[in-house]
Amino acid sequence: MIKKLQINAPHQGLFMITDEVNQLVCDTGIREGLCTLFVQHTSASLIIQENAAPSARQDLENWLNRLAPENDPIYRHVDEGPDDMPAHIKSVLTATSLGIPIDQGCLALGIWQGIYLWEHRHHGGRRNLIVHISE
Amino acid sequence: MIKKLQINAPHQGLFMITDEVNQLVCDTGIREGLCTLFVQHTSASLIIQENAAPSARQDLENWLNRLAPENDPIYRHVDEGPDDMPAHIKSVLTATSLGIPIDQGCLALGIWQGIYLWEHRHHGGRRNLIVHISE
Amino acid sequence: MIKKLQINAPHQGLFMITDEVNQLVCDTGIREGLCTLFVQHTSASLIIQENAAPSARQDLENWLNRLAPENDPIYRHVDEGPDDMPAHIKSVLTATSLGIPIDQGCLALGIWQGIYLWEHRHHGGRRNLIVHISE
Repeated sequence: MIKKLQINAPHQGLFMITDEVNQLVCDTGIREGLCTLFVQHTSASLIIQENAAPSARQDLENWLNRLAPENDPIYRHVDEGPDDMPAHIKSVLTATSLGIPIDQGCLALGIWQGIYLWEHRHHGGRRNLIVHISE
Repeated sequence: MIKKLQINAPHQGLFMITDEVNQLVCDTGIREGLCTLFVQHTSASLIIQENAAPSARQDLENWLNRLAPENDPIYRHVDEGPDDMPAHIKSVLTATSLGIPIDQGCLALGIWQGIYLWEHRHHGGRRNLIVHISE
Repeated sequence: MIKKLQINAPHQGLFMITDEVNQLVCDTGIREGLCTLFVQHTSASLIIQENAAPSARQDLENWLNRLAPENDPIYRHVDEGPDDMPAHIKSVLTATSLGIPIDQGCLALGIWQGIYLWEHRHHGGRRNLIVHISE
């Protein structure tokens, strides 16, 4: 079954979506299954990361910003702004889809794992996720 | 259900496969479900990216070629040619499998999303994809 | 259906898990389906890579260690040791989940493909994988 989620991601950064996705899963009543998340954009992506220390997520952002900086002279595709090509690159290096097993009616995440939408544009806006849930 | 696709990828670069995959999905008649793509190689990979501007895809290729260049002195595994280790690295940094929801009988891609086979070798040849489609 | 695997990963490196996963798949008797692997950690990840040359895997490790080194002055999250932030970064650049089709009762891997758990900490210990198998 297909569900849709819209996430408000007004600026660059990691937006935790664990609770929203878990709620969708719980509502189905499925005890064992698979939840597949898919983000319908090429400038935002999905990761599973440390849900405790904010400094770990900040380091992750800083590191990736340095790896794929704005205004790199290698870019030719610059007409959509300096954050556009870095956004596509970051999207490709992370994930557009994630498959997460469902166990005992919940997402089978590890204790330190959170699900994040990673917005790569400075002015992202609303991002659409498609969620497929099956047994 | 399992389907197979063979993609002709004679040279390094991004080969759009959206239409081929969508056709397989449409042919099943499934209205809501999940399509999982899997590439059976370690020197070619899958990404979902911008389907409009060719310059964005070219920048992506140039950027990744610079990040994982040929003839890096760190490589010990050089007997299969200078493009072999960069190909494995690029494959690991992108995706071997992608899960894409099916909605209303079609792949639930965003408007700007295309599916690409990324061939990382100079002389790739035919690449095999396994496609799993389920409700 | 959900299965669990515990992998002993006492040190940094790539641990082949192809046989363990294939055994789980074979035991189900499913002929055509999908196997989704999920690692419940943020400092270990999954990749599919070259199963033949050990030098290719060693190059991969060396290359990623150089890309995300320990003691990078950009890190603020350092209280869990110098290998902690590099581990999170490497985890994000590789995969937390993998979807692998099942064909003729086995994982539909290419001839050169092996599945690896990539332990990114120096003292990893036991790592938990959740395996979802369906038709």
